[in-house]
Amino acid sequence: MAIRAEIITVGNELVTGLRSDTNGPYLAERLLTQGIITQRITSVGDEVTAIANTVKESRQRSEVVLVTGGLGSTSDDVTAEAAAQVLKRTMTIYPKALEYSTEPACSWDKEPADAQKKLAYFPAGVELIPNPQGNAPGFLVAEPPLLLFFLPGVPPELRAMTEQSVLPRLAEAFTSETYYQSRTVKIFGITETTADARLKDIPKEHHDVDIAFLPRFPEIEIRIMVRDSCAHAALEKLRCWETEIRKRLEPYVIGIDAETMEEVVGRLLRESKAEIAVAESCTGGLIGHRLTNIAGSSDYVDRIVVSYSNKAKVEMLNVPEAVISAHGAVSEPTARFMAEGLRALAGTTLGLATTGIAGPGGGTSEKPVGTVFISLADGTKTWVKEYRFSGTRLQIKQMTSQVALDWVRRYLLKKSPLSD
Amino acid sequence: MAIRAEIITVGNELVTGLRSDTNGPYLAERLLTQGIITQRITSVGDEVTAIANTVKESRQRSEVVLVTGGLGSTSDDVTAEAAAQVLKRTMTIYPKALEYSTEPACSWDKEPADAQKKLAYFPAGVELIPNPQGNAPGFLVAEPPLLLFFLPGVPPELRAMTEQSVLPRLAEAFTSETYYQSRTVKIFGITETTADARLKDIPKEHHDVDIAFLPRFPEIEIRIMVRDSCAHAALEKLRCWETEIRKRLEPYVIGIDAETMEEVVGRLLRESKAEIAVAESCTGGLIGHRLTNIAGSSDYVDRIVVSYSNKAKVEMLNVPEAVISAHGAVSEPTARFMAEGLRALAGTTLGLATTGIAGPGGGTSEKPVGTVFISLADGTKTWVKEYRFSGTRLQIKQMTSQVALDWVRRYLLKKSPLSD
Repeated sequence: MAIRAEIITVGNELVTGLRSDTNGPYLAERLLTQGIITQRITSVGDEVTAIANTVKESRQRSEVVLVTGGLGSTSDDVTAEAAAQVLKRTMTIYPKALEYSTEPACSWDKEPADAQKKLAYFPAGVELIPNPQGNAPGFLVAEPPLLLFFLPGVPPELRAMTEQSVLPRLAEAFTSETYYQSRTVKIFGITETTADARLKDIPKEHHDVDIAFLPRFPEIEIRIMVRDSCAHAALEKLRCWETEIRKRLEPYVIGIDAETMEEVVGRLLRESKAEIAVAESCTGGLIGHRLTNIAGSSDYVDRIVVSYSNKAKVEMLNVPEAVISAHGAVSEPTARFMAEGLRALAGTTLGLATTGIAGPGGGTSEKPVGTVFISLADGTKTWVKEYRFSGTRLQIKQMTSQVALDWVRRYLLKKSPLSD
Repeated sequence: MAIRAEIITVGNELVTGLRSDTNGPYLAERLLTQGIITQRITSVGDEVTAIANTVKESRQRSEVVLVTGGLGSTSDDVTAEAAAQVLKRTMTIYPKALEYSTEPACSWDKEPADAQKKLAYFPAGVELIPNPQGNAPGFLVAEPPLLLFFLPGVPPELRAMTEQSVLPRLAEAFTSETYYQSRTVKIFGITETTADARLKDIPKEHHDVDIAFLPRFPEIEIRIMVRDSCAHAALEKLRCWETEIRKRLEPYVIGIDAETMEEVVGRLLRESKAEIAVAESCTGGLIGHRLTNIAGSSDYVDRIVVSYSNKAKVEMLNVPEAVISAHGAVSEPTARFMAEGLRALAGTTLGLATTGIAGPGGGTSEKPVGTVFISLADGTKTWVKEYRFSGTRLQIKQMTSQVALDWVRRYLLKKSPLSD
């Protein structure tokens, strides 16, 4: 029998639509790695009775209950009081907590004395959970087999306390019969249906593997989750399946877990000792922004030119005026001249260019909104291709930047941006 | 007595941490405008018993229950079955729903015949809710005073059905005693504490006004919410308080509701018939990306140059090599030459420049990570200022782009980027 958990997130901002809950999903995913199944995630407002009722119900259904939020120093923080009501215990001061809270993490964030004191009041007989990121500690009520955790709602504090105290404590309390391991493979360039067709036999024939598809524009994330009664074997199994799945989806796999396209492209540029210059038109700086999000990108990014006006294309990229007037700014020859022109000026290994119509205005019947030309020049050869993307202005910019970066990735891997 | 609602969102992806719930917050906010208070938002997995139990509990506590998700055509969609169990009714086919679902919105998204049929099975005696965006209809069970809605989980479908059917139906069923109206004022340039000090007397002295602070880096959103027994008076009251709050926070108010800094700057550039060219170093294209996210920005954005290398600063912006070697690329004179140089080359009204150390590497004791120079040139005068920002690489880029755009906003409003 799997261990069951419930998560309760407290805050008026959650039940009035001001914020969506990110603590619940984070905790659910972390619990799952230890074989603990979250049955419900409930958000309630900052009200003693509402919180107390939710906790009462949850503890009857689950072995683990995690409550986040409402432990701060202001008057609307009432979670500790609700806990005292559920546990039928009085509130008492914990001198140890007072020590934490009189040592604020940041001197400019010093709380007034009253506020500090509030942070040290908890129901009697609980176990404090230190907060390495802030001055509101959490607490734990252990009534075997039930473990009831109360944690702050500020995400970095919650995360630090979960990793440092909650997960180790759960591992100690419950010997899991099933260990879960998961990894996300990010793909780009094929549809979910095509990817599914290549993988669907796996979960059918292997009941210890789950595969979930999560489109996250413009990429698709594929989460592989494996189960085993041994933690080590689960990890080993995950490695095997990741290898198999990558093999089936090549060359569309761009990264693993949090890895981004720009990180992968940056690593490949660095490994190839290549430098890049980018001439952007419709992407407006997005390719430059993405490339320069990576620390150390100044080693391989020489310059980006966003030539939004035709004058800028002529002056900054040496695109011949006659080419623009004959073919238009959004055309195969203009894209080619942009990539080659900037590459020559910058003296870089690669010149990349985009020109297109991001909309919503500016489209014609011949060149509708979403018409985009991408070009890559390496001094020997220049590739150019026309695309028709759809969606909002931002989506067309995102899609164009993604395809352009994918060209660089493929070029560096296979010496051609368009090879399969 | 306010009308109470509960929202139940169904999906394994929600309780395993794969996705955070956005339907709950959306619905809660929409209900609130009609004076309906959401007590709980609960996420449960795709399991008949779990869904049925949650619905049973919620209907005992609330007048309105909204269930989203699990109405699709695949085998893991079991919400309709759970509803039948709670209502103690049999499942039956609705020919009308079959009509909807055999007319798929997109031809490439045609469902197989079996899948179509599943979309037309619902508990007996319910009222169908049409889905203008997809082929899975929703349904409504009216057991006065209880209204129980079942809606698809795909956000655009849910939203369309909520606006078109759910909200009008609620307005008809419940005469609200209280109407809520809210608006978000976005500020930038002062801390939450300072803004709070300027506004805190308002909710204290006026019990029909609530003010909530929501930091959304690098901006702070201030949500004003007013109550009144008359819908029209609530709107009028909101207008008055917005005016008052804007007055107290000038010149730090950058926009209202969904309005962005780049939208406001774009509008001001257009109104002033001004053109801009931007020389970015540490921001790497982010200012260009933001400016060009606005439709029609090609009317006022001439070019962006991301001069990541010193060579690019010299070649593309005419920054004298001697200035860079004497003062460094991150310096007051370099920033000034970048803004003035690009403005002269582009022939635009304004030249904007950023140069700095975004980190995590590259800092020195004299110029630590986060040192940034911003410069704005209008041909008559050039402003330059040094900042010390903190945070991650991306946060330093975001903060720099935000301050730089705010300079343009203030310049266009007051002819000086640094006036208060």
